[in-house]
Amino acid sequence: MKALSLWLEKHRKEIREDYFQFLRFASISSEAEYKNEVHACAKWVRAYLEKCSFDAELIETPGHPLVIAEKKVSGNKPTVLIYGHYDVQPVDPIDAWESDPFTPTERNGRVYARGAVDDKGQIFYAMVALRALAELDRPLPVNVKFCIEGEEEANSVGLTAVLPKIKDRLRAESLLVVDFDAYDETTPAISLGARGILSMDISLTGSKGDLHSGLCGGIAYNPNRAIVELFAKLYDSTGKVAVDGFYDDVLEPSLEEKKAYPQKHGSDYFTKEFGIHAFGGEKGRTLQEANLFRPTLEINGLGGGYFGSGFKTVIPAKAIGKISCRLVPNQDPKKIGRQIIAFLEKHCPHGMKLHAEVLSGAKAYRANPFSKLANAVAAASEEATGKVCQRMLSGASIPVVAELAAATGSDIVGMGYGLATDQIHAPNEHFDFRRFDLGFFTVARTIEKLS
Amino acid sequence: MKALSLWLEKHRKEIREDYFQFLRFASISSEAEYKNEVHACAKWVRAYLEKCSFDAELIETPGHPLVIAEKKVSGNKPTVLIYGHYDVQPVDPIDAWESDPFTPTERNGRVYARGAVDDKGQIFYAMVALRALAELDRPLPVNVKFCIEGEEEANSVGLTAVLPKIKDRLRAESLLVVDFDAYDETTPAISLGARGILSMDISLTGSKGDLHSGLCGGIAYNPNRAIVELFAKLYDSTGKVAVDGFYDDVLEPSLEEKKAYPQKHGSDYFTKEFGIHAFGGEKGRTLQEANLFRPTLEINGLGGGYFGSGFKTVIPAKAIGKISCRLVPNQDPKKIGRQIIAFLEKHCPHGMKLHAEVLSGAKAYRANPFSKLANAVAAASEEATGKVCQRMLSGASIPVVAELAAATGSDIVGMGYGLATDQIHAPNEHFDFRRFDLGFFTVARTIEKLS
Repeated sequence: MKALSLWLEKHRKEIREDYFQFLRFASISSEAEYKNEVHACAKWVRAYLEKCSFDAELIETPGHPLVIAEKKVSGNKPTVLIYGHYDVQPVDPIDAWESDPFTPTERNGRVYARGAVDDKGQIFYAMVALRALAELDRPLPVNVKFCIEGEEEANSVGLTAVLPKIKDRLRAESLLVVDFDAYDETTPAISLGARGILSMDISLTGSKGDLHSGLCGGIAYNPNRAIVELFAKLYDSTGKVAVDGFYDDVLEPSLEEKKAYPQKHGSDYFTKEFGIHAFGGEKGRTLQEANLFRPTLEINGLGGGYFGSGFKTVIPAKAIGKISCRLVPNQDPKKIGRQIIAFLEKHCPHGMKLHAEVLSGAKAYRANPFSKLANAVAAASEEATGKVCQRMLSGASIPVVAELAAATGSDIVGMGYGLATDQIHAPNEHFDFRRFDLGFFTVARTIEKLS
Repeated sequence: MKALSLWLEKHRKEIREDYFQFLRFASISSEAEYKNEVHACAKWVRAYLEKCSFDAELIETPGHPLVIAEKKVSGNKPTVLIYGHYDVQPVDPIDAWESDPFTPTERNGRVYARGAVDDKGQIFYAMVALRALAELDRPLPVNVKFCIEGEEEANSVGLTAVLPKIKDRLRAESLLVVDFDAYDETTPAISLGARGILSMDISLTGSKGDLHSGLCGGIAYNPNRAIVELFAKLYDSTGKVAVDGFYDDVLEPSLEEKKAYPQKHGSDYFTKEFGIHAFGGEKGRTLQEANLFRPTLEINGLGGGYFGSGFKTVIPAKAIGKISCRLVPNQDPKKIGRQIIAFLEKHCPHGMKLHAEVLSGAKAYRANPFSKLANAVAAASEEATGKVCQRMLSGASIPVVAELAAATGSDIVGMGYGLATDQIHAPNEHFDFRRFDLGFFTVARTIEKLS
């Protein structure tokens, strides 16, 4: 720890500059106009891995490029594969940002930028940790590989497509996913499972063009009305998702699992931290169940007609909705997608043209909580923080992780020092150097503990 | 007619240029960033009225300016007041326009531009008609006034505010509102009533910021879900508006009225012209009732979360809705507004912060179908077209008309040569010179027939 610490302080300024440079790429993977920025960012990542003395390669995919890297110690040693992503979420509502999302800005010890945490900040401290080990000439007890993709926020299309071809090059005993949260400001955590996800585009079309609400009002069936009537049917009066068969395959958690993964926060916490006034989910379920063990269906986007300043007396031609589900073990995203489409078709208001399309899906996963890697990360994080590491499940999703683990034959452990209050996926995302340092120490010491 | 026709042909090129210049102002009254454009447009209108040999004045208001003008023949003669507006609707979705909305473009004999009909095209032919009478030295049998406002599409805030101060200057026996549709391509019409309107902003807030649908999904009550659940309650299963008391004051039309104002088109027309697949309104009511005699409630805008390309797994802090009603005689917009707010409060999903605000309201009106002005416009339009003029009611609203008529002591007649297929309030609004000419002749001959 001492030598690592000295190395870090010595290189502090340079690391800060490199971090900020990484954050300046507007590598928004889900919006086509940022394609070049995403590509430039991938090249930067490859160059940085080379600086960390890895053999790095940029792999083109049908989507955005992937960066893989390797530092081979010996064919007889086990291999750990470190996964992260260099792409970021969109930035709207842009007006809510206090500083430009791609101009990293330090305020009160925090770095504000899109990707400050998720996942540029986190994968960057992992790269820096490996660089420190190399520059300090500390012997690696394992082979280390990196797989840093460019579309985690856009369904990992590229990685999924090329995975069959490159999986042998990524083969590893352990998969360390550096894209998770800490337990709290000072307590480390490892993540041993995540919910799956399913995302869908929906639209209802009522006419070939927008209509005047005076001339056609009372005549045309308004798609905005149709979509609220249709979507309101998605939930029953107890808050359950009303889609037929939705819960059929849900694997109820065992008592052991409920004990191993206690609910981190009560409702007070959510009210205080996020200003949540109203709680959703199914009646009669605990927050723990709602957050970790139950599937959800959310309307992530709703749009139709005119809703800018002022008023426009329009009956829109079309209303659109974006829906996603968080899935739990044994739900199959493909099956759930079919069930939702069947439900929407069955309840589609008369005469509306329904378009319903699954955009992407990924299964949930749960890993061995006491694998060699899990124990190493836990010990390293305890050394870095002086606090007992918590074993956790995540309510969120890292779609490609289960797939990557299966393809490369690896055990999975998720680690990270993000916090739910870091505004990831929201305006004013931020991280701080204190937690950045904890991540750096944890990754470096984890590798050393894998001997 | 002959002399007017010769004059029009002689000035055709100049009039086309002036018309296009008028259309080039992006005089969108409901969006604050266009304030200067609206003002410049008002100055242009004043100058044009002076060119028509009127005494014209630009009157500043708390909103956008108003242009009034007068040509006094004699204190003993009656006065006709011509009303129109130089402001226009917003232009989104801008991508659906085939040519720029503020670059008037002629294609197949049609002029495409925002305001080509509504109402720049229509008020412009009225100005040109008065200019022709002046340049031809034809004696006016009446005093003529103009009142051309700059925020008809934004609730006539300015005109309403200054009306008490200027109403004596606008006093008239007759009010000619040049902002209506013809019966069809070749048949003229006069409009003797319009529905009232009420517009409202609604929002539901669930948290202080956008939330991650994985980390808070299943915990937070999603405002998008809340708004669909709330809005779905606005209608009962027969398509009636479910707001308590909504229909209490509705004046049912008399048999005479139903006969005087027959429904213009059957449902086939609406399906063919607008591609309407689905009909709304109340079960058991005819299209005529739905379109002219019944009040409506429409969701004109619905927005929450992310609905651009790609996907964002967000639970939005807030979902918004824009609602408007078309009202019929004797409904009071203030009372209806209170009833809707009470309904929304009563049914607001638990824990959501409801904001519900009335933006504007105006009563419906119905005028004397056989007033002196009504008969003059009918005769003039029959002379221009060779077709019998139809007496009509409009399902749309001209909020300020009833107010202006009451304040100035005038009978009301609406005229115009718009058509429901002109895409007014929608992308690719257009007008044609054939109907422009019919408007020109009708206004000029109406004035002459008022002797």
